[in-house]
Amino acid sequence: MAMARGYAATDASKPLEPFTFERREPHADDVVIDIKYCGICHSDIHQVRDEWGGSIYPMVPGHEIAGVVTAVGSAVTKFKVGDHVGVGCFVDSCVGCAARDLDLEQYMPGLVPTYNGREADGTPTMGGYSDQIVVKEGYVLSIPENLPLDAAAPLLCAGITLYSPLKHWKAGPGKKVAIVGMGGLGHMGVKIAAAMGAEVTVLSQSLSKKEDGLKLGATHYYATKDAETFKTLAAQFDLIISTVSADMDLNAFLGLLKVDGAMVLVGLPEKPASIHAFGLVGGRRSLSGSMIGSIKETQEMLDFCGEHNIASEIEIIRADQINEAYERVLKSDVRYRFVIDMATL
Amino acid sequence: MAMARGYAATDASKPLEPFTFERREPHADDVVIDIKYCGICHSDIHQVRDEWGGSIYPMVPGHEIAGVVTAVGSAVTKFKVGDHVGVGCFVDSCVGCAARDLDLEQYMPGLVPTYNGREADGTPTMGGYSDQIVVKEGYVLSIPENLPLDAAAPLLCAGITLYSPLKHWKAGPGKKVAIVGMGGLGHMGVKIAAAMGAEVTVLSQSLSKKEDGLKLGATHYYATKDAETFKTLAAQFDLIISTVSADMDLNAFLGLLKVDGAMVLVGLPEKPASIHAFGLVGGRRSLSGSMIGSIKETQEMLDFCGEHNIASEIEIIRADQINEAYERVLKSDVRYRFVIDMATL
Repeated sequence: MAMARGYAATDASKPLEPFTFERREPHADDVVIDIKYCGICHSDIHQVRDEWGGSIYPMVPGHEIAGVVTAVGSAVTKFKVGDHVGVGCFVDSCVGCAARDLDLEQYMPGLVPTYNGREADGTPTMGGYSDQIVVKEGYVLSIPENLPLDAAAPLLCAGITLYSPLKHWKAGPGKKVAIVGMGGLGHMGVKIAAAMGAEVTVLSQSLSKKEDGLKLGATHYYATKDAETFKTLAAQFDLIISTVSADMDLNAFLGLLKVDGAMVLVGLPEKPASIHAFGLVGGRRSLSGSMIGSIKETQEMLDFCGEHNIASEIEIIRADQINEAYERVLKSDVRYRFVIDMATL
Repeated sequence: MAMARGYAATDASKPLEPFTFERREPHADDVVIDIKYCGICHSDIHQVRDEWGGSIYPMVPGHEIAGVVTAVGSAVTKFKVGDHVGVGCFVDSCVGCAARDLDLEQYMPGLVPTYNGREADGTPTMGGYSDQIVVKEGYVLSIPENLPLDAAAPLLCAGITLYSPLKHWKAGPGKKVAIVGMGGLGHMGVKIAAAMGAEVTVLSQSLSKKEDGLKLGATHYYATKDAETFKTLAAQFDLIISTVSADMDLNAFLGLLKVDGAMVLVGLPEKPASIHAFGLVGGRRSLSGSMIGSIKETQEMLDFCGEHNIASEIEIIRADQINEAYERVLKSDVRYRFVIDMATL
C-alpha cells in the first residue's frame, strides 16, 4: 500500500479539504502514475454535491488525469517508467464486454468510474485530485509527447466527449457542424471539429467569447439569445452537438438541422426536454446523446490531438483553490477549463 | 376538362358528401387514372376536420390511390393505357429538388400534397375519394400485377411510411425490430420488417391482436399496458418504430433500445413528448422521425411488396360508408385498413 495525498469531499455540503488515503499495491497488470495535473469537470461538482444521488464519501474527485509512469506491474507491456499517460472517466469495465471488444464499454453495465464508483471487490475508487493513482494497464492512455501534460489533462473527459460524437456522426470536409455552448466541452468541440475539416459554427448565449471561438477554429459565431439566429440558420446543419446542461428549447435547435441532420446531447439538462414530434418527422432528423468514449477511441482521440497539436485552453490553479474554482465553474467564469497543478498539493 | 365524381368535406364540422368537380385536361406529361380503390388514412380525418389548421374546402381526401391508366399525355413514356398504377401522398415537388435528385423530396418545401394542397398555379388539389385523377407521370407509381388493387392501395401511404424507416435504419437479418401499435401502419410494419428478414416484436396496448400479429410475421407480441413488458424487453431492440399518435411515455420505450438503437416516430402525437436526456446519452440512442418516402423509394417499396406478395389487410367499404368508417378508425375498430370501392360511388 502507498499513502496518497489529495483533496476530498467528506459529505455533500462541505468544501473539499486535504485528505490522505491508501492506494493499492500494484498488481501484475497495474500501472502506477505520478499525477501531475487533473482537470475540473462540471460532473465533479454534481457528484461532490450528490446531485445525481448515490455519492460515496469520502470522495476524491477527478477524471481528467495526466501524469508520468513511476512503476509498472510484471505483466505490463504497453507502458514503462517515464511515459506520459492519462486516465479518463473509468478504470475498469466488465470482462464480458472487454472480451467481445465492442469498443463501446462506456455504455455497458460493469463500468467502474475513476471515482465515486467501486472496484469489483467493493473498494471505492478515488480519482485524480491526488498525487498518485494505480490503474490497470488496459485503462491507461498514452499522451503524445508533443502535448503539454497540463493542457492535455482535459482531453481525457472534455476532449473525448466531443471527439466521439464528431467521429460517430462523421464530422469532416463538407459538413456543417454547430457546437452549442462555448465552455470547457464546447471549446474542445470547436478545435476538434475544425481539425476534422468541418465548417464550424458556435451557438452561444451571447457573443462574449466570439473572438476566442473564431481563433479556435470556428467560421461563424451566433448568439442564441437573438431570435434572429434561429431564422438565419434554419435547416443549415448536418450535426449539432449541445454541450449545455441548462434547460433549453431543443425544438428551436432541431429546426436548424438539415434533412437527416442529427442533434447530439453531451450535456445533461436536469429537466426532461419537451420535443415536438413534427420537428423530427418533418425532416428525418434525430435527437441523440453521446457519453465519453471507449478506451480505444480515447487513445485514437489523443493521437489525433497529438497530430493536430490540439489541447485544452486552461487556467492552472493550486489545490487550495479547488473550492473557489467550483464556484467559478458554476458561473461559467473560466476560459476554458480549470486544471489543478498537483505540485501544489 | 372532365367532370369527376367523389366525396368531399365542405367544412370542418360536416360529414363528407357526394361531390362533383373538374379534373384538368391532361398535359403532355400527365397520366389519367381511373381510380378503383382508395384507402382511408387517419390523416384524412385530421385534415377533413381541420385539426392541423389551414384546411382547404371543399376537400376531396384520399392519398392511397390505386387504379388503371385510361389515357396518357403525348410525352408520357413510362405508362400506357391499362397499366395498374398508384398515387400516394404528393403529386408534385419543387423543380430544384427534382433536378438535384436527392431522393428526399418528401421533406422539401415545394411538395404538393395529393389533396388539401395547391398546384403551382394555385388550384387546390383533390384526392382519391373520387373516380378519376390526372397526375404528372413523375408522381405516378407502378403497382405490380400480382398485387390486388384493393389491398395494394394502402401501400401508397401506410406501406411506404413503414418501409422507408425500416430500410433507412437497416432492418434485416440479425436485427431486432419492434413495431409499436398494431393498426393500419403497424400491421404493414410487421409484414415488411419480417419480409426484410428482421426479428419482429409487436408492442401493442393489449394482446387482442396477438394472433394476427404472429400470423403476419411477428415472432413476439407484448402488451405495453403490462409494466413487466418494459423490464423483460429492456435494451433488446436495434430499432423501434412507433406508429402511435396517442401520447405515450417515450422514455420507457427508449429504455428498450440497445446501445446505438434508434426509435423512429411515424405517428404524430399531438402533445410534445417529454424526453430525459439520460435515456439518449447513456446508450448513444436516438429518437428520430420519418415521413412517407420519395417517389423512387415508393416504387422500390411497391416492387419489394410485389416480390414478397405483401399487401394490406383491408375492409372494403362503399362510398356511402366513409363517415361511419371515420368513426370506426377513431375507435381503432378496423382490421386493418378501410378501402373505398369506387365502383360504389
